[in-house]
Amino acid sequence: MSYNKTPSITAETINPKVKIFSYEPCGEIVRRAERLQQEMDENPDSLPFPEIIHCNLGNPQVLGQRPVTFFREVLSLCDNPALLDREEARALFSACAIKRARKIVNSIPGKETGGYTNSQGVKSLRQAVADGISARDGYPSKPDDIFLTDGASAAVNMMLQILIRSHEDGILCPLPEYPLYSASIILHGGTMVPYNLTEDRGWGLEIFEVKRCLEEARSAGLTVRAMVVINPGNPTGQVMSITNQEEIVEFCRKEGLVILADEVYQENVYVENKRFHSFKKVARSLGYDEKDLSIVSFHSVSMGNHLLKLSGFCGESGRRGGYMEITGFGDDVKGEIYKLASVTICPNIAGQILTSLIMDPPKLGNESFESFEAEKERIHSSFWKRAKTLGKAFSSLEGVSCNNIEGALYIFPRLHLPSLAIKAAKREGVSPDVFYTHRLLDATGIAVVPGSGFHQVSGTIHIRCTILPDEDKIAAMIPRLKGFHESFMNEFRGSEPYMNDLRR
Amino acid sequence: MSYNKTPSITAETINPKVKIFSYEPCGEIVRRAERLQQEMDENPDSLPFPEIIHCNLGNPQVLGQRPVTFFREVLSLCDNPALLDREEARALFSACAIKRARKIVNSIPGKETGGYTNSQGVKSLRQAVADGISARDGYPSKPDDIFLTDGASAAVNMMLQILIRSHEDGILCPLPEYPLYSASIILHGGTMVPYNLTEDRGWGLEIFEVKRCLEEARSAGLTVRAMVVINPGNPTGQVMSITNQEEIVEFCRKEGLVILADEVYQENVYVENKRFHSFKKVARSLGYDEKDLSIVSFHSVSMGNHLLKLSGFCGESGRRGGYMEITGFGDDVKGEIYKLASVTICPNIAGQILTSLIMDPPKLGNESFESFEAEKERIHSSFWKRAKTLGKAFSSLEGVSCNNIEGALYIFPRLHLPSLAIKAAKREGVSPDVFYTHRLLDATGIAVVPGSGFHQVSGTIHIRCTILPDEDKIAAMIPRLKGFHESFMNEFRGSEPYMNDLRR
Repeated sequence: MSYNKTPSITAETINPKVKIFSYEPCGEIVRRAERLQQEMDENPDSLPFPEIIHCNLGNPQVLGQRPVTFFREVLSLCDNPALLDREEARALFSACAIKRARKIVNSIPGKETGGYTNSQGVKSLRQAVADGISARDGYPSKPDDIFLTDGASAAVNMMLQILIRSHEDGILCPLPEYPLYSASIILHGGTMVPYNLTEDRGWGLEIFEVKRCLEEARSAGLTVRAMVVINPGNPTGQVMSITNQEEIVEFCRKEGLVILADEVYQENVYVENKRFHSFKKVARSLGYDEKDLSIVSFHSVSMGNHLLKLSGFCGESGRRGGYMEITGFGDDVKGEIYKLASVTICPNIAGQILTSLIMDPPKLGNESFESFEAEKERIHSSFWKRAKTLGKAFSSLEGVSCNNIEGALYIFPRLHLPSLAIKAAKREGVSPDVFYTHRLLDATGIAVVPGSGFHQVSGTIHIRCTILPDEDKIAAMIPRLKGFHESFMNEFRGSEPYMNDLRR
Repeated sequence: MSYNKTPSITAETINPKVKIFSYEPCGEIVRRAERLQQEMDENPDSLPFPEIIHCNLGNPQVLGQRPVTFFREVLSLCDNPALLDREEARALFSACAIKRARKIVNSIPGKETGGYTNSQGVKSLRQAVADGISARDGYPSKPDDIFLTDGASAAVNMMLQILIRSHEDGILCPLPEYPLYSASIILHGGTMVPYNLTEDRGWGLEIFEVKRCLEEARSAGLTVRAMVVINPGNPTGQVMSITNQEEIVEFCRKEGLVILADEVYQENVYVENKRFHSFKKVARSLGYDEKDLSIVSFHSVSMGNHLLKLSGFCGESGRRGGYMEITGFGDDVKGEIYKLASVTICPNIAGQILTSLIMDPPKLGNESFESFEAEKERIHSSFWKRAKTLGKAFSSLEGVSCNNIEGALYIFPRLHLPSLAIKAAKREGVSPDVFYTHRLLDATGIAVVPGSGFHQVSGTIHIRCTILPDEDKIAAMIPRLKGFHESFMNEFRGSEPYMNDLRR
């Protein structure tokens, strides 16, 4: 018998599907930022900036956003239901939160918030979500169609696992895309069929382009099973017109494609002339029902929250709560989805509770309504202000063009860099966008994600920057960004030395 | 263009890997119990029993177990950190919990509990887990080796995804097994290489049997990558001897196999002559370090909790918290695991916090220590009592043999049923264990899982029953069980009519 003195598992011998996908928003830029943070902690004055600003992830609370009081009160009470019977709790929690928490705890089998739940989620919480969807859309939603999940990512992953049988199954995805889709398609052994969004038409989706890609994929022998749509767009910040959504519904119905609708930014719409419409609502309003079309809608507690005219914000990213609404599938398919969900037994209960809260927030007449609405209004208008400020700042930079942010939490400017910069990137063995983002981080502490992480159209250069730092941070960040960019451009034109200290 | 009038996705056209696995603890028995519950809700006196007792899942809190106060206080405060600055909170929370929650919140980047965290989990919480492991084992553990996860199931799933490249990669798994393993191996396209545990030696693992299975698998062209060990055992309730663990360590080292150690029941050891030892500790005490052997240890907040001489209990199943400790892998492999974890961005924060608490509970001298210890002692000794009571009851039944429960939360009795019962099952198109469990549920409301759900040795008949119902429920359940079993045996011997009403 031979003795293996070294462990048998190396990066060369793991699952190659894991090796090949990339997930940049949590990737190299994060590790680089962590190294800088460590340097800064050990040696406070060693770097040319006072702090690192994480604009790489849509992670509101790490950037200073305060959580919504009502949500936290309810969660806190559900975590410790013994408080519900204590007189002293009235001094610390609103009556509205106490009432809601009691209702939730009583509706959970066993009246405890620590047990496994149904693999699809607690029925009463799914009912709250379904009621919220019905109120939002004006078309009925059923708790049996709702799967509560550990965030939208887990739900997307589960649906792609159900749909993909082999490398010959294709999934239509937008480019640029949120890389969860390519990662998950690769991990489940399928083939991504990309369609381009059109940057110079405000990142619009053109149905003839999608049709061309579908036909090309079919000619190559693929069975295309579904079409991913992200609305409002990530990383593009575009909000689809209803006409566009109608075209997509007609197209998917005709072609027998499942619509996988990433609707996690549904409450982050900033412009007056656009509104969020769910794909299910659009399909129903065209007269199509479950027999005509399969639609899965994904939503999460990380980002949005609805039902108020002025869209608000939950931002409880780390809570990992979300749902998918599955329509147009038979009970047999739903049974298989349930079985797949049951492998990890159930979604986390705090996430389930929070998901029910965002779909059933305090209403007019509830004690918490006014303060809740005020908090939401403050958050929403601040986002809109930040989006405009950042958009203006990026647009003012030499060689940078930038679409209007209509929704979501990101700006995705395009960079036109001097050819010397592109050559310098090549010498370092990285793409120009990666080169730029590393330089930006090292010089200013601003972490953004290179556009290649979102599979931007080949030959173009973008960066994705969240609009989440609070207003003070954005005000401090803009001069650093401008100073860096000017130096960068000058360096690669060769006229001025590189600026080393941006802290002044 | 052809119009597809019906949705294209049916159970026949989904991923066949999803179709073929089974997950019985959340499967048919649960659906059947839900139907009965619904019948009972609609028509309270329609069924021959007063309530359904869910002995199918290790789900303590649904069966009456109260949560541990300290854990819930800390969670509640972390969910709503505004409470930490309120004088009134002192009336509702122990000083110890306030102090711990403040420490946790302050250690999270951004000092908020709602943001995305590092994909591996918050560093300070991983440090707490690593310190807990070091204290438990007497060998050092590093926070970089800890991945906090949404429960142990998610961690197991992730590691199998890393290890399995194709159908030609095999994973050694015990039979009977917890079906997460077979499900996850099938879903990731690998091959399960089963080895039998020996029932008549107290469900012991015999290394020559494992070696035989390994050699057979290799002859068949498989590359066996890892060996799953579940200790304490699920569904068997066996606790491994240290000699047995040493043999396994030697074997895996020689054969170059990763040890995947399911150690989620580490604190549920009931017998005097057995103790829990982690596989990492056993390996280190044999003088093997990271260069010699790769070990992954899985633990969760669902089941156990340690560090007190009398093992205690957390039971926060629905919280979905857990960790894996990864040793003997290079940084390159850990980088790939990190990337895989980042696809779902991060584990839920409440689960992360709870995981840190079970590995770092109140210590002697802390204000909460005594009440905490008392709660744990009460839970633990009650489990031991329930295990003995249920063991005795099952053993007293005609044709039933039952090993001693040494640990974990289950009893896995073997049934020897009359041949007429086996024929009756065949006529209904189900296996005899499924036939028995359905009859048991319909007649008594007691839900247990058929042994085929754990891939029992072919030709044998078992059921898995948790020891979790509280003592009163167990007392009420035993006469129903006995009455049912007697009738069942009589029915299939043909001597007495079937008993229809067990509520008397």
